[in-house]
Amino acid sequence: MSLPIREVRVTPIAFPDPPLLNVAGVHQPWALRTVVEVDAGDGLVGLGETYGDAPHLDLVRRAATALTGLDVWDLNGLRARVAAALGVVDEPDRHGLTGPSSAEKTLARVVSPFESGCLDVAGQATGRPVSDLLGGRVRDRVPFSAYLFYKWAAHPGAEPDEWGEALDPDGVVAQARRMIDRYGFTSIKLKGGVFAPDAEVEAIKALRAAFPDHPLRLDPNCGWTPATAIRVAKATEGLLEYLEDPTPGIDGMAEVAAATGMPLATNMCVIGFADIAEAFTKRAVGVVLSDHHYWGGLRASAALAEICRTFGVGVSMHSNSHLGVSLAAMVQLAAATPNLGYALDTHTPWQSGVDVVAEPLRFHEGAVTVPDTPGLGVTLDPDALERMHRDYLDCGIRERDDTGYMRGFVPDFTRRTAAW
Amino acid sequence: MSLPIREVRVTPIAFPDPPLLNVAGVHQPWALRTVVEVDAGDGLVGLGETYGDAPHLDLVRRAATALTGLDVWDLNGLRARVAAALGVVDEPDRHGLTGPSSAEKTLARVVSPFESGCLDVAGQATGRPVSDLLGGRVRDRVPFSAYLFYKWAAHPGAEPDEWGEALDPDGVVAQARRMIDRYGFTSIKLKGGVFAPDAEVEAIKALRAAFPDHPLRLDPNCGWTPATAIRVAKATEGLLEYLEDPTPGIDGMAEVAAATGMPLATNMCVIGFADIAEAFTKRAVGVVLSDHHYWGGLRASAALAEICRTFGVGVSMHSNSHLGVSLAAMVQLAAATPNLGYALDTHTPWQSGVDVVAEPLRFHEGAVTVPDTPGLGVTLDPDALERMHRDYLDCGIRERDDTGYMRGFVPDFTRRTAAW
Ligand SMILES: [Mg+2]
Ligand SMILES: [Mg+2]
Repeated sequence: MSLPIREVRVTPIAFPDPPLLNVAGVHQPWALRTVVEVDAGDGLVGLGETYGDAPHLDLVRRAATALTGLDVWDLNGLRARVAAALGVVDEPDRHGLTGPSSAEKTLARVVSPFESGCLDVAGQATGRPVSDLLGGRVRDRVPFSAYLFYKWAAHPGAEPDEWGEALDPDGVVAQARRMIDRYGFTSIKLKGGVFAPDAEVEAIKALRAAFPDHPLRLDPNCGWTPATAIRVAKATEGLLEYLEDPTPGIDGMAEVAAATGMPLATNMCVIGFADIAEAFTKRAVGVVLSDHHYWGGLRASAALAEICRTFGVGVSMHSNSHLGVSLAAMVQLAAATPNLGYALDTHTPWQSGVDVVAEPLRFHEGAVTVPDTPGLGVTLDPDALERMHRDYLDCGIRERDDTGYMRGFVPDFTRRTAAW
Repeated sequence: MSLPIREVRVTPIAFPDPPLLNVAGVHQPWALRTVVEVDAGDGLVGLGETYGDAPHLDLVRRAATALTGLDVWDLNGLRARVAAALGVVDEPDRHGLTGPSSAEKTLARVVSPFESGCLDVAGQATGRPVSDLLGGRVRDRVPFSAYLFYKWAAHPGAEPDEWGEALDPDGVVAQARRMIDRYGFTSIKLKGGVFAPDAEVEAIKALRAAFPDHPLRLDPNCGWTPATAIRVAKATEGLLEYLEDPTPGIDGMAEVAAATGMPLATNMCVIGFADIAEAFTKRAVGVVLSDHHYWGGLRASAALAEICRTFGVGVSMHSNSHLGVSLAAMVQLAAATPNLGYALDTHTPWQSGVDVVAEPLRFHEGAVTVPDTPGLGVTLDPDALERMHRDYLDCGIRERDDTGYMRGFVPDFTRRTAAW
């Protein structure tokens, strides 16, 4: 019952993205992703979704050519083959959100979509959801958070999008209300690092007033100095369920953690296994946001969760702009992760229903019901794939660049790391 | 493609054990084990092997009754069901080798044989070796060490066994030669804690002279004070590949580790996930001996290996007296554990070919070839199971008690923890 890979197809795609603001600038009009199809023949096609930036896409393509004949169960072999195909490559991530680059992190990012595809095939072949292959479902519904952004009403020169402007507490609350009305989310995250911290705390307070029972999070993406972070953390104790990456680096986070009672979460100072020993020993973080896209896949993310459990560190999940393959993978992983203690992040509402999968998983009362179907539980829409690939070819964007795009409108804009 | 458990059979068995000496006393004439058969119908029977001590056997039996209908893939559900069936039970291990007891450790020990059985069934049903279900085989051969013991020529009053006496360096070297001639082991471990440390170091030096190329290990099972351990560790630097549990407790081990360059290994101060944070933070150990029997199963042991990798700690494997089901499980786990850096411990040579499996895995040039067959790769010998169960009923031993047995011959004997 060997299940060798016959072919791997790699397709870059693009989809419209609203002008969401963050510490690095503003989202470009098109977001990029890469769809991986692991084809084991007999109709067994497993899916993976990853970043679409050109240097990463090149590596994914290079790795894909090395996988023919690999058994889909041989995930250790997958890692070895990808490592051999890449050699030692140290490719910085283009989002600037996962810290200094390393060969290990590069490998983890490239392996991930293939691992997702292999698990999808293995699940289909055995008639089991991927969550079963990860140890079994511990929850039937996976809760997500309403992921709010400060945003412009429209990309400059374009028509306003359906979400409208959000540049102050009222705008943020209106956005939250619309998103929660539509999807039923029961917790809320605000992407900060856009305005001065006190303005963002005002938005949090407005959210608290409008949604008294929703756990709240704020993520300024390292926009603050440790001193500012300590001041804001103290001011928001009891108001936030966690404060995410207030300041850069493990030492900075440890300083803030030691000075306050606020749980600190991160997807910026613990982004690979090499960061864990130092961060945990220094008690820099209370919650790690896992993300199979850069941790090396679903099994690596499950291992991360075990490590966190062992060290008494909480687990949540991070999201970049993504589509329905990633959403399904997150749901399968979350379903099999006992100590996932928080609602997951997702950008899905910002994609306005555009997707590359035929029947995307849906939010109901803020959660996704874990599919019972074999594998990841989603299939590609071939027409959408083709259309979105054409959009990729046409959109002209080859690497995400929030800062460069912002500079088109604010020429002296610089990334605001530790700017406040 | 659901695979519900129809029935779980639990059978205590006994097999002859030679008079092996250790810090706690001497092995009794019979060793106890429990065989678990997870029966999913249609000929799918998965195997597990665990301790045979009566209090543990009672818990295993209680857990077994709760598993009917559980899907064999639902390993998270297995743990939950066993936990519910046991309630909070804190049952000390009877071997006195795995530190203070806890409900968590008790649960881990009881879950383990069922997890092995479930994985065996899942492997059989999918046509895959268990190593594939653990991430894929990274090695085709799993090396084991020659596990030497000081021993008497015979149990008092009985005929001499085939191994003869070993109470000095010559006896130890002769034992090593016989074992290596027979099985081809390429590394050697000596169980110490029986004689004064200098006498045991003499045995190690004799082994080095007789086997210049075999990595050597010494395991006095916490027989020494930290001061003695530091002295011996310094004296054996370069001679041992690691020194195993020279002294009790995380703090004691950390003291020895800080004072010497000797890698310290343990299966006595890091024996559950709750021990890891403290031990790793204090840099108490350089190598953890994993053991699926008390770490909670094969997947838990794989998670342990990931944690060790993350913290730069080595991984080896521990063994108690065991039979062929445990050997197969160890081989499958080792096959899928990339960072397993050492030959595994095994008591197999001491069981003189007695086994409960029909065709035990064999050592060739000191290693076991990983089976290609689905599941664990071994099946029960029903006649042997029945015979060994009768031996269990007849032997009169219900709990391992090396100290009590020794006191029958040396009335004032006491366990020699930190005795030197
Ligand atoms: Mg973040
Ligand atoms: Mg030991």
